[in-house]
Amino acid sequence: MLVIGIDPGLTRLGYGAVSLVGGRLRQEASGTLATKPVGSDADRLAILFEKLTALLREHRPDSVAVERVFFNLNEKTAVPVMRASGVALLVAAQWGAPVAEYTPQQVKQAVVGTGSASKKQVRFMVERLLKLEAPLEDADAADALALAICHMNSHKLQALLEAK
Amino acid sequence: MLVIGIDPGLTRLGYGAVSLVGGRLRQEASGTLATKPVGSDADRLAILFEKLTALLREHRPDSVAVERVFFNLNEKTAVPVMRASGVALLVAAQWGAPVAEYTPQQVKQAVVGTGSASKKQVRFMVERLLKLEAPLEDADAADALALAICHMNSHKLQALLEAK
Repeated sequence: MLVIGIDPGLTRLGYGAVSLVGGRLRQEASGTLATKPVGSDADRLAILFEKLTALLREHRPDSVAVERVFFNLNEKTAVPVMRASGVALLVAAQWGAPVAEYTPQQVKQAVVGTGSASKKQVRFMVERLLKLEAPLEDADAADALALAICHMNSHKLQALLEAK
Repeated sequence: MLVIGIDPGLTRLGYGAVSLVGGRLRQEASGTLATKPVGSDADRLAILFEKLTALLREHRPDSVAVERVFFNLNEKTAVPVMRASGVALLVAAQWGAPVAEYTPQQVKQAVVGTGSASKKQVRFMVERLLKLEAPLEDADAADALALAICHMNSHKLQALLEAK
């Protein structure tokens, strides 16, 4: 069983692939897909589409979890993030595995136990749950791994896979 | 020279194809691409992607204009529209023709002469400029045709095509 979490963004999209084998969670891959802040949003979304499609083909997830974007950001930040989330959902649907969305609060609740946890607490728990030997340096990848763990532990995943 | 205007939406995406031949604007096609409000947003975005890709392949536009979405809508309305706009920009970039974005105010300014024009005034001018024999019934298609006319008359189009 492998789940990929995606923290959408146009400049940096975080991803984290987590497997569950013999009852143990394991980090299979994590990192960011970046598009340079040059050219039109359209061209950058096309680059993101290619990179994300390649990522899913490489890791072959059984399910994908996408962070449900905050709406109360400022317009300049929120519009590209929401467009990138549209492309992330599209690519996940094209891959054919069930897709779920979680708010940041739901992820914090699932990973730390409280929806108001700090980024640092989330990262600490991700490192512990995945038994990572080195600390996570990349904030977007850490968020994406947390999302994958949240999804792995969710009843929603089971329901989605059974419905498939 | 053919321009396609796109008024993005997840449930209904309006499109309008306008050609310029011998100094005259002509409607080549217009309508809406719809996705039924069932299933996940991810699946619906994938359906929209397929339909929009087929539309561009059929009409082979030299350039595409996408409406720059209002941000001050409520969240429930704005999120799917912004995701759909992300997919529209992506498909246009994949088609390879230059893409431009215009706000509703810019479109009204270009078509009616004032950024505060009503929907009815825009529709009236679109019907007149394209010499349509029947009135436009479809509001989303009318918006998309206005967008295509705005782009056709814009200096931006010339600059984009020269840069290509």
